[in-house]
Amino acid sequence: MKVAIVGASGFTGLELIKIIHAHPKFELSYVSTTTGDTTIEKLHPALKDVVFGDVEKVDLDFISKQCELVFLAVPHKTAMELVSVLMKSGIKIVDLSADYRLELDAYVTNYCEHTDSDNIKNSVYGLPEFHEEEIKKAQLVANPGCYPTSALLALAPFSSVLKKDASIFIDAKSGVSGAGKKCVDVTHFVTINENMFAYAPLDHRHGAEIKEKLDFLNHQNNKVNFVPHLVPVTRGMLASVYLELDSEIDAKKVLEDFYKDYYFVRICDEPVGMKQVAGTNFCDIYVKQDGSTLFLSSAIDNLLRGASSQAVVNANLMAGFDAKLGIPVITYAP
Amino acid sequence: MKVAIVGASGFTGLELIKIIHAHPKFELSYVSTTTGDTTIEKLHPALKDVVFGDVEKVDLDFISKQCELVFLAVPHKTAMELVSVLMKSGIKIVDLSADYRLELDAYVTNYCEHTDSDNIKNSVYGLPEFHEEEIKKAQLVANPGCYPTSALLALAPFSSVLKKDASIFIDAKSGVSGAGKKCVDVTHFVTINENMFAYAPLDHRHGAEIKEKLDFLNHQNNKVNFVPHLVPVTRGMLASVYLELDSEIDAKKVLEDFYKDYYFVRICDEPVGMKQVAGTNFCDIYVKQDGSTLFLSSAIDNLLRGASSQAVVNANLMAGFDAKLGIPVITYAP
Amino acid sequence: MKVAIVGASGFTGLELIKIIHAHPKFELSYVSTTTGDTTIEKLHPALKDVVFGDVEKVDLDFISKQCELVFLAVPHKTAMELVSVLMKSGIKIVDLSADYRLELDAYVTNYCEHTDSDNIKNSVYGLPEFHEEEIKKAQLVANPGCYPTSALLALAPFSSVLKKDASIFIDAKSGVSGAGKKCVDVTHFVTINENMFAYAPLDHRHGAEIKEKLDFLNHQNNKVNFVPHLVPVTRGMLASVYLELDSEIDAKKVLEDFYKDYYFVRICDEPVGMKQVAGTNFCDIYVKQDGSTLFLSSAIDNLLRGASSQAVVNANLMAGFDAKLGIPVITYAP
Amino acid sequence: MKVAIVGASGFTGLELIKIIHAHPKFELSYVSTTTGDTTIEKLHPALKDVVFGDVEKVDLDFISKQCELVFLAVPHKTAMELVSVLMKSGIKIVDLSADYRLELDAYVTNYCEHTDSDNIKNSVYGLPEFHEEEIKKAQLVANPGCYPTSALLALAPFSSVLKKDASIFIDAKSGVSGAGKKCVDVTHFVTINENMFAYAPLDHRHGAEIKEKLDFLNHQNNKVNFVPHLVPVTRGMLASVYLELDSEIDAKKVLEDFYKDYYFVRICDEPVGMKQVAGTNFCDIYVKQDGSTLFLSSAIDNLLRGASSQAVVNANLMAGFDAKLGIPVITYAP
Repeated sequence: MKVAIVGASGFTGLELIKIIHAHPKFELSYVSTTTGDTTIEKLHPALKDVVFGDVEKVDLDFISKQCELVFLAVPHKTAMELVSVLMKSGIKIVDLSADYRLELDAYVTNYCEHTDSDNIKNSVYGLPEFHEEEIKKAQLVANPGCYPTSALLALAPFSSVLKKDASIFIDAKSGVSGAGKKCVDVTHFVTINENMFAYAPLDHRHGAEIKEKLDFLNHQNNKVNFVPHLVPVTRGMLASVYLELDSEIDAKKVLEDFYKDYYFVRICDEPVGMKQVAGTNFCDIYVKQDGSTLFLSSAIDNLLRGASSQAVVNANLMAGFDAKLGIPVITYAP
Repeated sequence: MKVAIVGASGFTGLELIKIIHAHPKFELSYVSTTTGDTTIEKLHPALKDVVFGDVEKVDLDFISKQCELVFLAVPHKTAMELVSVLMKSGIKIVDLSADYRLELDAYVTNYCEHTDSDNIKNSVYGLPEFHEEEIKKAQLVANPGCYPTSALLALAPFSSVLKKDASIFIDAKSGVSGAGKKCVDVTHFVTINENMFAYAPLDHRHGAEIKEKLDFLNHQNNKVNFVPHLVPVTRGMLASVYLELDSEIDAKKVLEDFYKDYYFVRICDEPVGMKQVAGTNFCDIYVKQDGSTLFLSSAIDNLLRGASSQAVVNANLMAGFDAKLGIPVITYAP
Repeated sequence: MKVAIVGASGFTGLELIKIIHAHPKFELSYVSTTTGDTTIEKLHPALKDVVFGDVEKVDLDFISKQCELVFLAVPHKTAMELVSVLMKSGIKIVDLSADYRLELDAYVTNYCEHTDSDNIKNSVYGLPEFHEEEIKKAQLVANPGCYPTSALLALAPFSSVLKKDASIFIDAKSGVSGAGKKCVDVTHFVTINENMFAYAPLDHRHGAEIKEKLDFLNHQNNKVNFVPHLVPVTRGMLASVYLELDSEIDAKKVLEDFYKDYYFVRICDEPVGMKQVAGTNFCDIYVKQDGSTLFLSSAIDNLLRGASSQAVVNANLMAGFDAKLGIPVITYAP
Repeated sequence: MKVAIVGASGFTGLELIKIIHAHPKFELSYVSTTTGDTTIEKLHPALKDVVFGDVEKVDLDFISKQCELVFLAVPHKTAMELVSVLMKSGIKIVDLSADYRLELDAYVTNYCEHTDSDNIKNSVYGLPEFHEEEIKKAQLVANPGCYPTSALLALAPFSSVLKKDASIFIDAKSGVSGAGKKCVDVTHFVTINENMFAYAPLDHRHGAEIKEKLDFLNHQNNKVNFVPHLVPVTRGMLASVYLELDSEIDAKKVLEDFYKDYYFVRICDEPVGMKQVAGTNFCDIYVKQDGSTLFLSSAIDNLLRGASSQAVVNANLMAGFDAKLGIPVITYAP
């Protein structure tokens, strides 16, 4: 099955190339960037002699005709321009941007005007553990943000037993690859090495995404207090989630039951670390309980489960393949 | 004024040596370790040609006779054995261990039996911003733990306006030097580099210390949920504190007013990072407010403000010196 | 084809497990450690739900009967004890230790007495670019050391044009995983983070291995000055090789010609970095020429090309498979 | 004694501010950047409440009138424009740029045209162990490059016993702060973390500086092969120097004798690490000898001994102060 990647120059684009290259059923038949006119090897020299192919300036018409599915690894706003055209051709789309993750109002409040709002209702939120059946039938999947992926997988199983008026606190930590390939002050080695700091505390757009999805589940309007931190790690994400429940339950059992049919969530006996999931699509979750208070620690690879490998899981489901087909499961550790 | 350091081989011992060496009024006249029979230069080769002196096997009698003040940088339990003897000689003591930080019951619950419980009441908790006058008169100061220092400096100014039944959440991150000099699995470079994980979640002894000190302040019995993390940084500590207040106040102004006479707490306009305080005794605090919910981020150098430089501030006060005398204030950054 | 791994607890054992698990023709049918009585998942929790299987206390008889090939990822000296027994059964052996890499005299000088010296002549040095045909026929392959692999692949193509009396200088840098899983002072995060130092300069045993193999090639007895450094990187190795030739040649062309039929050596246009080969079996080489002086920079993943994936390439050849079968080629970068 | 810093925004500017602030005899009376109109605290937030003062747009007239000595921490080419004016006023100048380090021909070959070549002969090369008396009398000191400082301190004591026709090999490693504060691809955390690579091999301008200074010492025209590497460390530099001598001497004794009157060079018994000198002006040197071949390992803090603290040592000498006055000697380690 021929697939295209639009936006191949960034970190998530590179991960998509790597996964698709090794995938037994997807064939990487089209790769593009804003400027095109290069090759995969020039764009990502570490893939020399491994992945071959030209990188074109994006041509939607060509994609629609030649490919059955396209991954959009472009910034928000750019994505909606592409989607509005591509949807008409019937091609399947996995959009890694934020453009179709939120309801219109929440999107406008947190991002910008939306010029393709009609397609919001045509999109499915691509968290496979929660929307598998809809994803299978979707033409357009909005791949979740990295922070929402790690946070929701930990907290959603408890949505129905959250204390009604309780606030939720999410203290999340992301590796620097999450800040993108652009060289800016916070991604300078001298700034972030031996360092760590919060950014956009109580104000990050992924907080709104977490809240919206939680509200859909429990209609309780719990307050979500979300604070991300940048940490001196290349790839990896750890979300600490603090919950207060309205009753004492066996939290670990809740998680185990909830995820017993889902391969890509592992419930662990020890506090989880970023490294154990690096290179994989796993979300590893640990829970510690003190009465009706829970501490959940959730680890993902921000570029994989937080973006590219989750996108390919969604593509697998959309294509009628097994969710696990070609998805990386072997850790980089040590 | 002649001072002694007992326990010179660890990281906090090394920092004490460095500060005392540069201090204008304290003279490092006695240094000891468990085994003795070495020199400062052999113990810490980076101090070659800078700090000279023998390192002895500990001799309490000699210390009592030759020195006016002693720093104990030894493990808990060892400290109480030394203190019980040293107190009788009248020498001033700054104990960096946990042995005199807590009330007896809390100590026994969280650590072990206490064989010198009478001296608990003779000790003062050495958080200078809160106990300056008592420290000045104390013979024995219990130097606070690193996590309690970073957490309490952020949350204590709000103790009287905390929502009565609210839980407090503290998500703290410590550099690896906090785990000590001993080579164990979690301090192996391959384990912790590119990694990060919680440990002793909701169960760490410093949580009990934070709770006790908060209870003393507001008698409200707020639940303290404390989760420390080990992070791939050599030195540094960042505590994220989440509070819910019973009213909307101007949180930044509360902090500024509270610390206006205290040099070593800086209230910052931007989220604070570990690196900006590395090498100093500063505690840098940032607050973000969403209605009556607060996010506080508090950064210290775990070995300095979290241990050795705070110990010397306490010693300054006990000796009648200015709190700032000889205390490091110039950051290691970049 | 059923294979066994003896010595599964260390870093190279873990990498072997990961590669064999994903290999299309090798089946991991036996895994052992010194103590046994555990499972792969318990030994390496990051492989939870991915690789299943018991870990036994080593049983040579069982291995000989059940398996066709065995990887020995055990320390030197232990290896020779196992090999002396296993050789008799006819099983194919890839030994990752140093026990069969050197001629007897060099071995004894650099390591210890050899109790299975007869089998030294039965072993083939497993650098596939140099001994492919012999490896194919070998029962016992001595997998090269990590430093010799990176250094020899860079310098061997120039062995015949080296200045007769010239010394060779090799300044090599290894990530911390090369020091093994044991927690010792130099592997403590606080020791090696933000640090870097030489060890065993001009005196490391891998220097003798490089010299012996070079002497076999050019019989010139060039002096090899080898200095390894430990650097704050988890996995990766970079060898700087300085050569003086007896004539001016086109060095890059020499490399390209030499390796044109070998997939796992890539000649690069820009100075090579550790990260571009992390996770792969590639050795990336860059050369800069100033007249008849060469600077060669050679990058490998110390655990893969420097140990485990090279071992599986050797196993592929011994089994009659394509060298590339199941060998990792997709980089971990970013 | 009033001093000025021109170029306060970069890493070396920051280190100068920190050292001068703590210096007992220099008073920081003027600080400027290209744009001015800010404060030290805004430029370097970690100095909040520690170092106060305005940062002006550079005004040479004001500097000449108000200050007795000026540090130029500006790029090459900018420095010569300032020096050509400042020299006339009689003010003492320590120039941290490359503009007056080299003879005119070497400068033009390696950098650019020189518009103030007359002052080259008025400048003294500021390596205090080699030019102390001239520095004391100089109006203009050209502060050495970081690589030449680390390399020359190791190799210069052997200049007279170098084998006549031998090449010298210098394999140097620099922390990322050496690449400056500008955010570019190689300083992006994701690029350099877990990585390491050579740059400008056999072609870096500091190679020419090392060669010129060595030629001055031994008039032998030894070939200097210099290869720098960027390594994942914030601050620190390690130079591996490989020498062949024309006779066997006691190399360690040569070093000890050579530096017996110089405090800031320490000859060490064990291979030296970057961390042991971080935060100090020390150059730590280790030598290993194999007959007449030497391996020298030389460690400095690239921002201090490699730039700012060496500049203040030079300023001390120019001002008639003790070389050690106010110079940092206490390591950042651990």
